[in-house]
Formats: sequence, structure tokens, C-alpha cells
Amino acid sequence: MRVLGIDPGLRVTGYGVILAEERGAVLLEAGTLRSDPSLSLEQRLLDLYQGICQVLEEFRPEAMALEELFAHRTFPRAVEASHARGVICLAAAQQGIPVYHYPPALVKQALTLSGRATKRQVQRVVQARLGLERLPSPPDVADALALALCHGERRSSSLLAPGGSARVGERR
Amino acid sequence: MRVLGIDPGLRVTGYGVILAEERGAVLLEAGTLRSDPSLSLEQRLLDLYQGICQVLEEFRPEAMALEELFAHRTFPRAVEASHARGVICLAAAQQGIPVYHYPPALVKQALTLSGRATKRQVQRVVQARLGLERLPSPPDVADALALALCHGERRSSSLLAPGGSARVGERR
Repeated sequence: MRVLGIDPGLRVTGYGVILAEERGAVLLEAGTLRSDPSLSLEQRLLDLYQGICQVLEEFRPEAMALEELFAHRTFPRAVEASHARGVICLAAAQQGIPVYHYPPALVKQALTLSGRATKRQVQRVVQARLGLERLPSPPDVADALALALCHGERRSSSLLAPGGSARVGERR
Repeated sequence: MRVLGIDPGLRVTGYGVILAEERGAVLLEAGTLRSDPSLSLEQRLLDLYQGICQVLEEFRPEAMALEELFAHRTFPRAVEASHARGVICLAAAQQGIPVYHYPPALVKQALTLSGRATKRQVQRVVQARLGLERLPSPPDVADALALALCHGERRSSSLLAPGGSARVGERR
């Protein structure tokens, strides 16, 4: 299945599309969507939305794995990222793509077996799983790919075989 | 000028459209957009977005006055409202409608001369300014109308005559 992982932010949104199969995962594309801080909030959200729509249209992912906000981000950053998350969720809903919400600790736990892994540890696992020549960077891209891998692996585990009812991430 | 005021929320978004002129303001329409908490976040944002788009298309406001989030809301509520704010801003940007961001205290100050006015005091001023038979309710609608009135009055004050450079609200 094609999975789109997204690390949402107003300044920088990281995204990564992978093809996740039982025998492993392959990178299809990854990158960042950046908005110009000198523009109005509305224009920045429009730019981000259009960027996400392009990725969705080009790769037609079967699922979006989206990072949950976590409570210890600063208030202004959380508010900013939530605006971005809003338009990202909207783009998915408009295209009928199911969204799965993952807290960062769950993604780390799934990939490194530790919910408190460092960014570097996560990058290394992502590099190994996708057979990349270099560590994925910037961190927004590495996190997006980690989200996609986490979703792909949980989906293809026996618990989640077709007909299974286990929940993947949290759809809300 | 036609001004759309919006008190954004995921559960309830209040909106109010007024025609603001030098000799006073007239209510065109007001109401709430509610999303079903049993649906996914994505679907709720899509429903809200479609509701806002309908209002924008029907009334073609020349400005949107949107309530700023204030820091003392609880974190989960602020995150929720920010998702809603994201899709509202997007709808405005797509239709080329400028958005002005007002903190609640500024709206209260503008209408009641006190930044700490009660909800009831704001409702009474909105009722009087628009010549309504009853107090506007629910509070989301009253707040939306207060935002629209605040913007309309600031726009038509001498400070903000055509060619003036004073900023109205905060466009960012």
C-alpha cells in the first residue's frame, strides 16, 4: 500500500510517500513544503494546502499517517501547527483518503522499540528500512518517513490482516 | 461594506454577516455551523469548510473579522479551534477575501469601552447597534456579530478613511 506520512507545521511540513509491502518498504518521494513567513497566515495556509493537494493527486496514497500534536509544544507553536494540520486533514477528506493520527512516542516505539529514541536513532532506522544511501534529512522529512513506515508496518502485521478489527493509529 | 464576523470552533462556529455603513449597521444573516463529534476530525473539518464556503459564496463579504485564539484557553480546546481556524482561513484565501484577526479583548473594548466586559454586556451592545428585538444568542453568534461590528466601525472611522494607513485588526 502507498502511505503518505506527514509531519505538519506552518513553517515546514515534512512529507514522505512510501510503498509498504510485506517484504519491505520502498521510498517513492519525500520532501518539505515551506511557507513564506512574510505572507499572511491565510496565504501560507493556501500555499500549504495546494502543496499537499499536489502530493495527494500525484501519488494517490491509500492512507495518510499524520503526527499528533503533543502537549509539551509551546502554545504558539501548537496553535500554528494546528492551523496547518487543519488544512492537511481537509485535503485528505476532500480526496477520500483516510487519516491516521499517531503520537510521536508511538512512532518511535514502533521503529526503535523505545518511545524516547533520539532523532538520530529514528533517522538511522528510517535509513535502514528504506535502504537509503544517506540519513534522511531534514528532521521533518525523517519524521514523515517514520510515520509512513510505522503505519505501513502496523497495517501489514498479522493483527491487521484484512478483516481484522485492530485499530491503526487513531482515526478521529 | 459587508463584513463577516467569525467566532471559530470545531464543535460550534458562530458567524454573522452585517452591512456596515456610516449611518449604522444592519444584520444580514447570522447563525452557527456545528460539526458532529461522532465523526472523524477530517470529516468535521470538511463539513465546517463547506459551511463557510456557502456563507462566503452567498454573501460575498468584503472582509472577514476572525477571533484570535487567546492563550488562556485550555490546550486541547486551542488545538481544536486552531484546526477549525485553519480551514476557515483557507476558504477566505481561496475566495480572495481579506482576513482580519481580532483578539477578544479588543472587540470588547471597541464595543463596550471595556476589555473585560461580560458576555451579556457585549450581547446588549450588539442588540442595540443592530436594532435586534432580542439579545443575540447563542454566545458564538453574539461574538461573531461583535467581531463584524468592531471591524465595520473601525473601518468607517475617520482614522481609516480611504487612503489612510492605520491597520485594522491584525492581518498576518
